[in-house]
Order: sequence, then C-alpha cells, then structure tokens
Amino acid sequence: MQYGFSDDGRRFTIDSPTAMPHASAFLWNRRMMVQATCRGFATAQFMQPEPAKYAHAPTLEARSFMQPEQPVYAHHPGRFCYVKDEDDGTLCSLPHEPVRAPVDGFAFEATPEALTWRVERDGLAFEWRLTLAVDDVAELWTLRVRNASGRTRRLSLYPYFPVGYMSWMNQSATWREDLGGIVCSSVTPYQKVADYFVQRDFMDRTVLLHAHAPDAWDARQAAFEGEGGLHAPTAITDATLLGCRDADYEMPTAALQYRVVLADGDAREERFVFGPARDDAQIHALRANYLAPGGFEAAATAYADYLAAGRGCVDLRTPDAWLDAFANHWLPRQVYYHGDVNRLTTDPQTRNLLQDHMGMAYLQPATARAAFLRALSQQESSGAMPDGILLVDGAQLKYINQIPHTDHCVWLPVFLQAYLDETGDDAVLDVAVTDAHGHTASVAERVDRAMHWLLSARDARGLSYIAQGDWCDPMNMVGYQGRGVSGWLTLATAHALRLWAGIRARHAGDSAADVFAQGAQACNAAANAHLWDGEWYARGITDDGVVFGVQRDTEGRIYLNPQSWAMLSGAADATRRTQLLAAVEAQLVSPYGVAMLDPPYTGMRDDVGRLTQKFPGSAENGSVYNHAAAFYLHALYEAGDADRAWRVLRAMLPGPDADDLLQRGQLPVFVPNYYRGDWRGHPRTAGRSSQLFNTGTAAWLYRCLIEGLFGLRGEGDALRIAPQLPSHWSEASAVRRFRGAEISLQVRRVPGVDTMRIRADGHVLDAPRLRGIVAGARHRIDVDLPA
Amino acid sequence: MQYGFSDDGRRFTIDSPTAMPHASAFLWNRRMMVQATCRGFATAQFMQPEPAKYAHAPTLEARSFMQPEQPVYAHHPGRFCYVKDEDDGTLCSLPHEPVRAPVDGFAFEATPEALTWRVERDGLAFEWRLTLAVDDVAELWTLRVRNASGRTRRLSLYPYFPVGYMSWMNQSATWREDLGGIVCSSVTPYQKVADYFVQRDFMDRTVLLHAHAPDAWDARQAAFEGEGGLHAPTAITDATLLGCRDADYEMPTAALQYRVVLADGDAREERFVFGPARDDAQIHALRANYLAPGGFEAAATAYADYLAAGRGCVDLRTPDAWLDAFANHWLPRQVYYHGDVNRLTTDPQTRNLLQDHMGMAYLQPATARAAFLRALSQQESSGAMPDGILLVDGAQLKYINQIPHTDHCVWLPVFLQAYLDETGDDAVLDVAVTDAHGHTASVAERVDRAMHWLLSARDARGLSYIAQGDWCDPMNMVGYQGRGVSGWLTLATAHALRLWAGIRARHAGDSAADVFAQGAQACNAAANAHLWDGEWYARGITDDGVVFGVQRDTEGRIYLNPQSWAMLSGAADATRRTQLLAAVEAQLVSPYGVAMLDPPYTGMRDDVGRLTQKFPGSAENGSVYNHAAAFYLHALYEAGDADRAWRVLRAMLPGPDADDLLQRGQLPVFVPNYYRGDWRGHPRTAGRSSQLFNTGTAAWLYRCLIEGLFGLRGEGDALRIAPQLPSHWSEASAVRRFRGAEISLQVRRVPGVDTMRIRADGHVLDAPRLRGIVAGARHRIDVDLPA
Repeated sequence: MQYGFSDDGRRFTIDSPTAMPHASAFLWNRRMMVQATCRGFATAQFMQPEPAKYAHAPTLEARSFMQPEQPVYAHHPGRFCYVKDEDDGTLCSLPHEPVRAPVDGFAFEATPEALTWRVERDGLAFEWRLTLAVDDVAELWTLRVRNASGRTRRLSLYPYFPVGYMSWMNQSATWREDLGGIVCSSVTPYQKVADYFVQRDFMDRTVLLHAHAPDAWDARQAAFEGEGGLHAPTAITDATLLGCRDADYEMPTAALQYRVVLADGDAREERFVFGPARDDAQIHALRANYLAPGGFEAAATAYADYLAAGRGCVDLRTPDAWLDAFANHWLPRQVYYHGDVNRLTTDPQTRNLLQDHMGMAYLQPATARAAFLRALSQQESSGAMPDGILLVDGAQLKYINQIPHTDHCVWLPVFLQAYLDETGDDAVLDVAVTDAHGHTASVAERVDRAMHWLLSARDARGLSYIAQGDWCDPMNMVGYQGRGVSGWLTLATAHALRLWAGIRARHAGDSAADVFAQGAQACNAAANAHLWDGEWYARGITDDGVVFGVQRDTEGRIYLNPQSWAMLSGAADATRRTQLLAAVEAQLVSPYGVAMLDPPYTGMRDDVGRLTQKFPGSAENGSVYNHAAAFYLHALYEAGDADRAWRVLRAMLPGPDADDLLQRGQLPVFVPNYYRGDWRGHPRTAGRSSQLFNTGTAAWLYRCLIEGLFGLRGEGDALRIAPQLPSHWSEASAVRRFRGAEISLQVRRVPGVDTMRIRADGHVLDAPRLRGIVAGARHRIDVDLPA
Repeated sequence: MQYGFSDDGRRFTIDSPTAMPHASAFLWNRRMMVQATCRGFATAQFMQPEPAKYAHAPTLEARSFMQPEQPVYAHHPGRFCYVKDEDDGTLCSLPHEPVRAPVDGFAFEATPEALTWRVERDGLAFEWRLTLAVDDVAELWTLRVRNASGRTRRLSLYPYFPVGYMSWMNQSATWREDLGGIVCSSVTPYQKVADYFVQRDFMDRTVLLHAHAPDAWDARQAAFEGEGGLHAPTAITDATLLGCRDADYEMPTAALQYRVVLADGDAREERFVFGPARDDAQIHALRANYLAPGGFEAAATAYADYLAAGRGCVDLRTPDAWLDAFANHWLPRQVYYHGDVNRLTTDPQTRNLLQDHMGMAYLQPATARAAFLRALSQQESSGAMPDGILLVDGAQLKYINQIPHTDHCVWLPVFLQAYLDETGDDAVLDVAVTDAHGHTASVAERVDRAMHWLLSARDARGLSYIAQGDWCDPMNMVGYQGRGVSGWLTLATAHALRLWAGIRARHAGDSAADVFAQGAQACNAAANAHLWDGEWYARGITDDGVVFGVQRDTEGRIYLNPQSWAMLSGAADATRRTQLLAAVEAQLVSPYGVAMLDPPYTGMRDDVGRLTQKFPGSAENGSVYNHAAAFYLHALYEAGDADRAWRVLRAMLPGPDADDLLQRGQLPVFVPNYYRGDWRGHPRTAGRSSQLFNTGTAAWLYRCLIEGLFGLRGEGDALRIAPQLPSHWSEASAVRRFRGAEISLQVRRVPGVDTMRIRADGHVLDAPRLRGIVAGARHRIDVDLPA
C-alpha cells in the first residue's frame, strides 16, 4: 500500500481499497454529513430537524446515536458506478464495491472539500468525486473517464445509487423526464396523530439527478440485481439496456446507464446530484442550482468559502510533516464540524456542547460565545445544567440525555478559561441571560450558581455525587441509589472551581472568588483523604461504599481521568504526581495511546454498570479513549512535561508508520473517539479505530497544540509564549492568528542557551508575554531553547 | 415450475427457488417462530418476554411490529450450507442462497412439522431440513448428502449460520470445544438502570452446536467472506480449511467445515442445533436434549404431539383437493399458532386476541375460554376494553396499542357467540371476573357494561365515535378531535348488541336482553338515516362532518366493511342488500379477492389519516385485506349466498392455477393478511402476497368453512346442519369433531330432490339439528341437496 499526505497537507491518499477496508473520510455542510469508505460505502444524515436519511439500509433501521465500528455489508448504502466494456463484456465498479474487481491503479483521496476515487483499469482512467453544497442537502458527484488505451472503446457506465428500504408505509420510484432523474418517493411512517403534523413537510423523496439524459435507467432494486446479485447485476450482464423499471412498494434504487464511445485520448464527464427533496419545486431548484453549466464550480467556491470561515488559528511547521498536515488542515476542520453543526444533533450533551465550543473559540469566537450563552439560558433554577442543550424548537432530550449526569456544570469554567484566554472578552461575564422561567441573571451570576450547585452536590465527606454518570456515560450504577461518588468529578469540581475563582477574582476581586477557591481546596482535600490509593487516585466509591479503581481491583484497577484531573486541580502534590505518572506509564500507556482504564472489565460489575459490559478494549472499557487521553495531554502540558506530552499527542494520530496505519485502519484526516485498547488481552484488534469522528478530543487536541506544544496562549491582554517542543526537535515554527493579529513564531534549540530566550520583533522580552496586540498587526517572535 | 400438495395434503412442494423468490413457510413452538423462504433466508423471533432475535441483520435493526413484504438482501439472516467439490473446486450452496448456483433438481417442501429443501447437483442428493423443539428456543437442522454419481466424491460441507450484528455494546464469537460448537456472545445494550434488571437474564448468546466435531470452523464474518463475498467466500475458495478465527467485537458468524469422502452410494448425515442461550448450562442442556442419539427423533415426536393438541375440528373432502389440504392441515395450524402463542406478542390488540381465540374455540375451547376471561379481567371501570391485553407481568402497550381505538368491546359477543355455539358452555357467563381495581363481576355483567359503553360512545345522531381508529388502525384522523364517527363501528355495534341480546335472552330472559336489542335497532336506524348513500353504506363522517366512502368520493369511494356488517347487523333490508352486493361486486371484487376499499387513495387525506398515505393496493389501502374479506364471507354465508361466498373464499387461497400462484408469490400453507389490490392501477403487482401470517383472517376463514360452507354449527345443545356447497359441487363430505362426538357428514346433490333432506344415522330429521350429542359418540349425517 502507498499512502500519504500531499506536500501542502490538504490531500491524503491511499492506493488500496483492500488494505484498510474501513478507511473513511467525511464531508459535511450546514445541514448534512456523509462519511464514505475507500470502497464506496457511505453513511449520510441530514437534519429535518432530527437526523434523517435519504439512502437507507435494506431493512428497517433503528434510530440511534452515531455508533462506532458500524459494520458494512453487501447492501450497505453506498455510491457506485458499474462499468461494462461493451466489447468484451468485462465488468467492474467504481470505486471498488460492489464488483470488487482487480484494477491496475487505485487512489482514494480525501481533501477538506472533496472525496475523490481514481481507478485505472485496462487503459481507462476513471475519477469518481464527491463534493457538497453548503446550504442544500445535496451530494454533488462527478464521473470522469478518459481513454488512454490506444484504441477506441465502447463502454456502458452505470451510476448506481441504492436507496434502500425507505418506508414500510409507502415507497416507490420512477424516472421523471421532466425533472431529469430518478425520483424515489416515500412516506415516513407515523402512528400517532401528533407525529403527522411534525412529519408532513419531511423531505421524503430521494432523487438522483443528472446533467445529461442517460440511455436507460432502473428504479427497482430487485429487478436490477436479478439472480446475478450486486456483484454482477442481471440488468447489466444479461441485457444491452437497463430495464427502465419502476418500483411500486418495492425497494427503490437509482441506476442510470450511459453508452459511451471513446476514441483514444477522449474523455467524458457526467455530473449528478443525489439527495432528498420534498417536492417537484425543490427538485427543480436542485437542478437549477447545480446542474446548470457552472453549477458545480459555483458550489465548489461556496463550499471553499464555508470551510475558510472555519480556518484554524495556527499554521505549524515542525519536523513531523504528518503532524503539520493534520494540525493545519484536518484537525481545525474537525473542530469546525463539531462547533458549526453541533455534531448534527438537536440536543447535544451539555458537556459536549461546551467542549466543542471551547474548540470553536479558536476558530469562530462569536459562534462559541453564542453557544455558551444558549447553554446558560437553559440552566435550571437550582444552578444545575441540564443533560443536553436543546437547539431547535420542539427538540427533546434523547438517548443518553435522559440519564441523569452530574458533571455538566464543570464545563462552564473550562469553556470560559479557554474562551477568555483566546478572546479577552471579559465583557461576556456581564451579559444578562434569561432562562426558560423568565429569570435573568448575568453570566457571572449564573456560573456562580452552577459552582455552588457543584459544591452542594457532594456528600458529607465532600465528595461529588455521581448519580447515573459523570463524564463517563456508562458508569451508570455507581451512584444510582444516590450515595455513590465520583473521584474524577470531585477533582474536576476542584479544577472548575479553581478556574472560576481565577476568572472571578480578575472580574470582581478576590472577595467574590474566595468561596470558590476555598471550595476547590475542600474538594482536593476530600479527594486526598478518601481517594488516594497509595500510588494513584481511585475512580469513585459506590452506593455501597466500595472504593473502585484501586490496587485491589483485578479489573478497572486504574482509571486515567482521576490522575489527569488531580494534576489539573492541584490535588496531587509533587510526590503524588510522580507516583501517579509512574502508575499511568506502567499500566495505561499502550502502543496506540493511553488507555482510559486498565485492566478492561471482562464482565458485569453490578456496582459500576454498563461500562463493565462493554467489549474489553472497545468504547470506554479499556480503550484508548482519545477524549480522556486529551485531558491527560492537557494536564501534561500544564505541568510542563513536554516529552511525555509529545508521546501522548503523537499516538492520537495514526501513521505514518505503515504497520500502525494498517492496524488502526484509519486515515489521519480526523481523530476518532477511540482506538481499541486492551493490547495485552486482544492484541489482534488493539489500535483499531472506531471510525467515529464525533469526539470532544478534537477541541482538546487543538487546544493542546496551540497552548501546549507551541505554548501560544492568551493571558489577560497578552499572548503568553511558552513552547514545549519535544526534546528531539531542534526547531519548529508557527503562524498564530490571535485577536486579529498575526504572530510568526520561530523556535530553535540553540547550543549554549541555558534558559528560554524570547525576542519579539527583534527585542528581547523580559517576561514571556507579548503585549499591546492590536488587530491587523504582525509580529515576529523568536524563541531560543536550550539544546 | 412444478408445485403442489401431496396426496395427504400435509406437504406442499415447489421445485424452483427462483420462480417465487419470496415464497415462505413458517414453524413455531411455544416460545419462538421462524419464517424461511425457499431460498434459505429466515426470520426468527423468540420471547424473553418481549420478542427478541438470535440471528440478526448486519446493521442496527429497529424494533417493530411484524411487517409485511419485508425485503431480503444479500446479508439477510438465513441458514445455509456451502458445498465445495474438493476435486474440481466447484461451489454451490444449500438451499439456494448465497451462491445461487444452478442445480439439477430442487424442492422446497413445507409440512406442518418441518421445512425441507432437497437439492440435486452433479450426482449428489442433498437434504437440508429444519424442525423445532417444543419448549426450547432451538432450531433442529439436519443435513444429508448421498452420493449417486457413480464415483467416489471428496467434498467439503460448510454449514453457515450468519449471526449478524448482535450488539453495539459487546459481541464476540469463538469455538467452544467443551460445548461442541460455536458460541457467539453479546450483551443487549442498555442505558437506563432499570433496564439492566430486565435484561440481565436475557439469552444473549447464539450457538451453533453439532453432533459431530467438524474439521474446521470460522466465527468471524468479515474474515469468512473476505474479498470473495458471500457468493464465493474467500475462506472457502482460497483455503483448504476454514481459518478457525474468533470474532472480538466484530460481526460474529457460525461456519463449520466437514471434509467428507463418499463412495458411490454412500450417504452422510449431520445434525445441528441453532438458537439462543443464556449460559453454559443451557448450552449443555441443548446438547443433551437434542444432540444425543435419538434426540431429534424424540423432539419430532414431542413436536408432533404439540401440533396434534391443536388439531382441527373438521376434516373435509371436497371436489377441490387443494382446499381440502389447506383446510384439513394448514388453516387450523395457523389458527392454533395465533391462539396458542398469541402471535408471539405480550400485548395483543384486544380485537386480535378475541378473534384469534374465536378461532381457538374450534381447537382448544379451554384455551379460548381462559384468554377471554383474561381479557375481561382487564376491562376498564367505564366498561370499555383496553387497546391491548397484557399477557405477562411488566408488559406494556406498544406501537398501535398506544393509539385509542373504539371497537374493542364489539368483539366480546362476537367471540362468545362462536365459543358458546361450539362448546355449549353457557356457564362461562356466570364466572366471576376480578379486574385490576379489585372489582368483581360476572362475565355477563361485564359484557353488559361493555355493551352499555358501546351504546354510550355514540354521538347525538346515534353514530359510534371512532376516536383515532376502529378495526382499521390507520384511519386515525377521522375522529381524533372527538366528533368523527365510524359507519362500520355503528353497524358492528348493532351486530354485537344483537348477538349479545340473543345470548342474554337465553341466559337471563328477554327482560335482560331488551335494552341491547333496542340498542341494536337504534344503531341500525342511525346508520340507515345517516350513512346510506343510495347504493351502499358510507364508511364514516369526519370531525368536520364530511361523509366519506360515498359516491362523490373519487378515492375511497366504497369500503367493504360497512356493507358486510350492515348485512350481519340487519341494517340492510333486502333491497339494500341487493344494491350493496351489486356495488361490492362491481367495485371491490378483483381477480385476487375482494378489496377493502376502492379506488385506493393516492395521497394524504388529512381528514382520514395515514390509511391514505399507504401505498395504493398495499396493506389496507385498497388491498385484498383478507380479514375484511373474511367478514364479508361470513356475512354471505349468514345470508345463504353460497356461490358468491365460495368465490370469495376460494380467492383467499393462492393457486392451484400456476399464474395465480406465481403472481401472488406465496405457498398455500397459510393465508396472508393481504394480497395487493389496486389491480386496475397497479396490475403488475396486484395479487402479491404480504407473506405475513399474523391475521384475524385465519380464525374467520376457519369458522366460515365449518359453519358456512359445511354448515355444521352448534346451536344450544344441538348441532345445526346447513351446508352451503357451491352449486357446481355435486358432493362433499366432512368429519366434524363436536363436543367430544364425531360426526360424519355426506352431502350429495340428488336429482329430483327439491329441498334439503337430512338423515342422521339413517333416520330423517324433521329439523336440521342433531340433538342428544354426547362425548365419545359417533354419528353419520347424510344430506341430500337439490341437484
């Protein structure tokens, strides 16, 4: 397998569809996302307003939150193009499925704006390319074929977009000459009257529109496949032309046929639009917007503009080109996806929303600010934050958001610290926020209340109740009886209180902050009194008083989060830091990153909950759960542990080592929520990516690159400069966009230098802070580090 | 295609897997059911206590009520056996999927006790056979291969039982030498703590156990398939032995390999058990019960005994051998399935439960009686019946049972009439029934209250409110505002009241019955005043006062049910009967049966509801909905319209005409809930079977055969004799089991006879009633009909 980033880092390519069969990349716009594998399978969702699909499985699908490691199968939704050589009858398909024919050349290329498959076979060069519109739910597909075979070729090209089982109530499909494509119609089933009024304007059609009329078509899945099956559809193998067959309450499909004669050197291009629509008018509009001449080009410009609006705030140049590509193009893109469309949910978990917008603070501070204020407007009277933040009218708390969790308030100061550092927007603290009960209070007052709620939600020992979960969703039985406490949450509460005390002191003086500073100390003291286990901090204490995440446990003996947050909160003194870091190193560090706990549970522990039922090494149960690893990374940078931090950071990104890339099975174009752990128990599958790009990791990792690795963090009205390059790097540079200014940073290791030396625009700085930053200005910072 | 019943009617065979690709048959036992197609796809469910699966789709499946016309696809659950010729490498699979290789001979045989596929290929004769245990959730599979090729053959046999996507939380699979098979493990996901306590004893494993150890195995789906895909799995084509691979949080599968050398004339048999299990102990028990020598034979005996307990109460012999086979073996079996396991639900709709047990009254009156008393014990204080009857502790009303319907009380007297006729058990009326509130009342008092509730649930005109539905579930917007009324329900109320008045008069005298007789008259009068549309009865009047199911409607102009029940209730006088029968004949009778309404709706009518969103001709929307057709059939027999009734009856059963059988795509081993209608609008698909065997049709059709066609109905302490043979039959006979006696009936058309003449045991009867029936007695009835 050949693979790698382009020089500018904006394109990642692999040249095999079989080496990493699940390797995928994703595109999104304001209303939809699509994740496609190198083999052509695709999962797409759009919002109306809840997540919906326009290309379905061939069976009744469950509605669920986005799942990791979803399997694919022959009839999985995908976007394909069969190609038949009309002279010799050979059949292949783009990009690889469903025929899986051997080819002479293959490339799957991901850029931020497009996914492109290039296939060469028997002197023909094919390109199959997907881009998106910005505000429409519309996939824009381009098919190109060029004949370089030295002879004239007669081909049939069959774009094939399976639509699946749309509805048990009503589904059909046919060709619409007037609309220029195949229109699949359905009615979303409903049983309760009230649902009708919600659903009646749904986009219940799925359309495949073309720029040029094909020679034939088929809209009936079963007839298209025939006895030949997907790998050799009877409609293609046994006939000259597709059968032009409707689907009447039969599984719809969208297949077209173009008969093409190409002289040597000739090329052909076709364009298609695939997506949902409500009615003829919307279909006409899709045609007009995209399939008129120049439509795709205009859409590409608009989409590039959309992505540019989420441009990162730093450009890196390091000895690790792979990291540069990821950090400069892909990671901020993933942060932008989270922040701009809120993971395509209507009720993001409060902790997710706040962390996602912590990331967004580096890209679009105004968006982050608005999200934060929206979240605060849903604060409960008690000061508690709800389990999810509703983003649209009529949205409801679903899935995990129906389970009571106790950590949501923690993320308010965590968000604010990053947001205020980045923007200096202390004025946000005085913004008046009105809640659902009509009560108005300033941001500062509301965060005060949230912190008091955290202080109150502790037991007599001063430890924080866990209820049915904290950051770790599936730890749902530790405290469901109302007594169990969370070690992590106690420490996270301390950290949040400390952050808030700092912000509050600056905003309103020490007297306003004291109660929180004291509360932080109390939490830390309680953790030290009840949770220190000799070499690390315990994860919690159950309803029945059982301390867990401790040495005597044979499974779940050590958890990462309490250690990371004990460092952040100040609970761990220097001795304990040394001890817990050694414990993490010995027990949790794996070849694929830092595990969330170890050893993984192999069976149910009634007093912990469903975490212990998860497959060992998968999801949270001993996986390399990158979100937790990112907390650890943040704590390491805060502690100035640059080399250890570097190892943690680098392990979040698969490759460039081929074995590592193959084992993980993922392209380095996003960071997944987890890699499988349990590398001792299940070495065959350890490291495998979940392929799920919804994760708080993105925001934290981006923050760590900016504020940790390159040490470029806002501090009051200044930019603090404290790069923490790994010791084996001799130099690195960055361009940092900060409050409208552009700062070029050069870091070098200089022989003979004892301590870090910083020059700003040629002048040595006394303190590591650049002051007097104004929008539009440019500065150059030179940092000399000891060699 | 060759097809047909065996001479004894107990076996139906088709010899092509491609002519009727969806043709299916089903087996069930006390805890599970499995429906398999002729090609090997299978859908199985078991109760724990809600319906669950042990072989899954390859994606996250929605939980739903049983759907009609479910599509299949390459990775649909099924039970297969690949066969590789080790000498020439050729591959095929039993029974047809996944390889779909051409074969020399094929037969799919359904008997009440087993499904058997016979495949001949290249001198080898294969048998692949499924039977069930009675009380275990266990599929018992037998594979036989016989070499008749005239030479020694070296084969590999690969039983392949895909298990699918068991769980996103935890799934794995491996070989267990100690248990003798492949064990796939999973954890049913949960998020809410309360669910854990419900689920912790679930049978979360799926096992494939064998009698003899295979030579190799594979438990990892993706590795088994490889790039070859399901039609040519790489594990089979590219290797001598299966890879013996575990699945670790990967899609599990269960594939075995037997290397077999067969001399000419030699045969080999292998046995397998497939199903769910909770733990090792259950797996050991499955082994011990079924895979020890004689295990399958003992199971077969037990299963035959189980089926015999649901033996029908009549054996027919008519000029229509196809009907005889169906009526003597298959229809009572379907009735038994409904009645003994209540469609494998925990909350059957009240109307379904009562009608299903109306059928059960002919097979197991004691079971029917108990179900009726259980239903009555859930009567509400108002006298209304709930939308569903809960059968197990903790069950909840689901799906359609959460939508308020107004017809449930109607079915109490409908059940009772049939039950009392069949059993003479008038004592049931005095049984005391205690409800959930602790109130006790006799059956008669409770039915009184139910009838009073029906009388009260009418508007000022005397028409019955429909709320969000009556018998027709999806007519959910006619009356959701509380004003709309149902024409059918008004007439059904009249019929129910009339039946109850009759029962009540016999039980407690006319004075107790008068109020109901008068109520019936009032309902009939209201229907005649407000719903007669000139040539037929309207279906209802919406919240906004729009009468529908009338001549001015261009869609849904005429509905079948109001016509049938106007005949039953006595609302229609002779003139109106003639008119409405002509209207039904002209508008609703189709080549595939009588449609439920016509013309089908082609789009939403806001004031009717989701019925009008269903695909035209499918489900209720203009389909040949057999349940409604069976009401009509009953009304015709009640009216003595023998020839018309015969045509309706016969159309419920596909075949024996080959074109008819192929068009419907169904074996005649059960009656489906519908055949597609709209034969004018969608002729290509009209007649196609839903393949769904859950339907009230079974009970009604059986009743019509017994009490209508053969006219053998209980009446007080006698058996009434009034056969209604179609005029083209010259003779027919039946053996009727009735209250413990066995009555042989011979019916002949005799030239010169003017009116029916009945002899009982050689003596001419004055009245058509056989009296003095005692258990254990045998009688012979001879009926001479006019020629």
